[in-house]
Amino acid sequence: MKPNLRRRLTAEFFGTLLLVATVVGSGIMAERLANGNVALALLANTIATGATLVALILTFGPISGAHFNPVVSVADALEGGLPLSETLVYVLAQIAGGIGGTLLAHIMFSLPYVSLSRHVRSGPSQFVSEVAATFGLLCVIWGCSRSRSNVVPFAVGSYITAAYWFTASTSFANPAVTIARGLSDTFAGIRPIDVPLFIAAQFAGGIAATLLFRWLVPSLPSTAKDVLVPHTDK
Amino acid sequence: MKPNLRRRLTAEFFGTLLLVATVVGSGIMAERLANGNVALALLANTIATGATLVALILTFGPISGAHFNPVVSVADALEGGLPLSETLVYVLAQIAGGIGGTLLAHIMFSLPYVSLSRHVRSGPSQFVSEVAATFGLLCVIWGCSRSRSNVVPFAVGSYITAAYWFTASTSFANPAVTIARGLSDTFAGIRPIDVPLFIAAQFAGGIAATLLFRWLVPSLPSTAKDVLVPHTDK
Amino acid sequence: MKPNLRRRLTAEFFGTLLLVATVVGSGIMAERLANGNVALALLANTIATGATLVALILTFGPISGAHFNPVVSVADALEGGLPLSETLVYVLAQIAGGIGGTLLAHIMFSLPYVSLSRHVRSGPSQFVSEVAATFGLLCVIWGCSRSRSNVVPFAVGSYITAAYWFTASTSFANPAVTIARGLSDTFAGIRPIDVPLFIAAQFAGGIAATLLFRWLVPSLPSTAKDVLVPHTDK
Amino acid sequence: MKPNLRRRLTAEFFGTLLLVATVVGSGIMAERLANGNVALALLANTIATGATLVALILTFGPISGAHFNPVVSVADALEGGLPLSETLVYVLAQIAGGIGGTLLAHIMFSLPYVSLSRHVRSGPSQFVSEVAATFGLLCVIWGCSRSRSNVVPFAVGSYITAAYWFTASTSFANPAVTIARGLSDTFAGIRPIDVPLFIAAQFAGGIAATLLFRWLVPSLPSTAKDVLVPHTDK
Repeated sequence: MKPNLRRRLTAEFFGTLLLVATVVGSGIMAERLANGNVALALLANTIATGATLVALILTFGPISGAHFNPVVSVADALEGGLPLSETLVYVLAQIAGGIGGTLLAHIMFSLPYVSLSRHVRSGPSQFVSEVAATFGLLCVIWGCSRSRSNVVPFAVGSYITAAYWFTASTSFANPAVTIARGLSDTFAGIRPIDVPLFIAAQFAGGIAATLLFRWLVPSLPSTAKDVLVPHTDK
Repeated sequence: MKPNLRRRLTAEFFGTLLLVATVVGSGIMAERLANGNVALALLANTIATGATLVALILTFGPISGAHFNPVVSVADALEGGLPLSETLVYVLAQIAGGIGGTLLAHIMFSLPYVSLSRHVRSGPSQFVSEVAATFGLLCVIWGCSRSRSNVVPFAVGSYITAAYWFTASTSFANPAVTIARGLSDTFAGIRPIDVPLFIAAQFAGGIAATLLFRWLVPSLPSTAKDVLVPHTDK
Repeated sequence: MKPNLRRRLTAEFFGTLLLVATVVGSGIMAERLANGNVALALLANTIATGATLVALILTFGPISGAHFNPVVSVADALEGGLPLSETLVYVLAQIAGGIGGTLLAHIMFSLPYVSLSRHVRSGPSQFVSEVAATFGLLCVIWGCSRSRSNVVPFAVGSYITAAYWFTASTSFANPAVTIARGLSDTFAGIRPIDVPLFIAAQFAGGIAATLLFRWLVPSLPSTAKDVLVPHTDK
Repeated sequence: MKPNLRRRLTAEFFGTLLLVATVVGSGIMAERLANGNVALALLANTIATGATLVALILTFGPISGAHFNPVVSVADALEGGLPLSETLVYVLAQIAGGIGGTLLAHIMFSLPYVSLSRHVRSGPSQFVSEVAATFGLLCVIWGCSRSRSNVVPFAVGSYITAAYWFTASTSFANPAVTIARGLSDTFAGIRPIDVPLFIAAQFAGGIAATLLFRWLVPSLPSTAKDVLVPHTDK
């Protein structure tokens, strides 16, 4: 039996909140301690983010599916998993959670609640990076969720660990997280004016991967209902 | 059949001992080798701590539930898992084990058996960090233990790996470990006078998460008996 | 039921593409950020590569077997797994995917599409390293795939993480990846003239391991059909 | 059906060889690249060692039990697992494999085949560290192998990752590996004159843990036959 919608939205809210708190918070901590060594700061930021994804998807997956990401919710809806009526509120819960995560990180590190980022992330190199990052992420999710949902947490955590380094954008790959990072003038921030193109690139990459897997695995839509919406017997 | 109480307490003692020996010992080693690069020292400290949690929870989980943490034991008791009469002795075994871990680390690194830490960790930023760190930890434990206790070791190890970086306090999240670290004037130490507020914050965060999951997963209390007290068929 | 050959080749193409994009892309990112600290750059490159292997083998394994490597496909064919008629096209898909990965990485980091590497990697030390690296890789694959195909992704990711450091060549261990890295004058590159000897060493090591395991595990050939060609019930 | 003794000894030989090649080889690579930053070199050495243990135990476990360590074989014999007649040859295969690993690492890095280490590792601090390191290792092996042999590779890899940092000796915890490291005047080396005390400490710690778990888990001896000698149905 699936948990009711309020419980699932609460899970999406807290999961995305803790995810963004990790991304932003570990970026602040890493930059403060790294004495200008950006590779070391990004390595710490990477390890924290990959690890938190494993923990949070294991924790909230049985309740809400642990999307934490509007591209995932929309792709799941496209495949007939999440009903369209629930998709919008999933996305709203994710965005609210993401902003909550920035707030929490700033409070923990004694910063103003919100600060508009001045970190420039624009240009074709960044756009292509976000397309590729989100394309890969949705490949991983569709490829694993079908027959082996218990490995999704490890696959997604591993993928993002890699994607922080192999893309020029450090792989945001998530519109809710991108919006939240726009509100943090810290290591992980992004200039608000650069956010829309990131989001467009993310949806483009995510939908391309979804179409690819619809062809690669013809049985995918028929099982989508079971795999991304709460994927355990709860 | 559940192991008898003496065996379970012995498991809690040795598990917490090895956990604290890792936290304190790897902090000493890391600081000695890192030539003042705190980010690098914390990264080594983090990787050692996350890895030891995976190993120790896998090792002692089937015997005692591998709490190693008074907040976990108390939360488990609140949900009807651990009997109240056993909770106090669990906590005592954890505190004794933690102090033993500091002793062992100091002996291995040729330091005085005990040294009161002078590492200041106070203020609202630290308090909020410990609330958040322990809130997240108990979310992870309750979220995973229900239907998938075999992933708890990986989820907790991953979570603490992240929490070392996303909180301003480096996420103690454990009163027994906090007390033990008060007795070590090294990298991982905490001034004894700062200990009580850390412990208060940890219980606040842990109980908040427990209440949240009581609502999120209504079936939790009825299964708590099986999940946190020795969670295998032994 | 096994996916048809076009689907499997597509999976090999995209999997190898994302693998090489990670190897080359994370090398570029790491070198740019590491300020000349090669150990730190290689550590980031290692963690990204090991993590991506976990994610990609989990993702594409159920479709194509997730070889991404001509030595693996040839060894599988030798054991009677992959039909000889399919082996050649597997290899071609892998080589094409690898070159695509270099292209993608270069585009993401605003570099010319292709650049011949000037990174010298020759001499007996490099040759022995590649023999050993690929010998170990095929040991891991044959040792794990037999009875526990679900651990192959973790075993291979872990092995390559180690092999980047324990061999003098940083363990290419893959002819398709070697060719693709010949086209990238960046951190992960290899001078095209050094490529043939690398490939010879890789096949030598891989075939030696295959012969060893044919003796170690007499039942191996009879099960090869099931283990390396799509290893789930899809 | 258990593989015959020759196959099992071959597995012990190659497993220990690749383990030592990783420990010694990654130490050489790390020291060469780290420009005197010992913390960074040890971190790379740690990650390579932990990862190789995961891969090698998964690979050779189903054949020989993947001991790679005389303390493990002797402890297993004490519990009635490995017959005494086989224990000696297991140990010999491990020592031979370890020396082979040093040779291979030296050849890969263009060093003399063997070189007596001048790295001083003596004194009570080192002795206590090796007792603690091997005590912890055998706790992990006995605690996990009983009911969940499939997690042993991950538990041991994680434990050694932590133990490299929490002990003052960087946790050799293995007589065969200790002897092999005596023959390498590189980062991972140990002065041959210091080897005997290391081995004594390792057996002391390992036997103490075995006795502890004999009491903690009364059913252990009766199942030892199945858990450490090839632990799958092959």
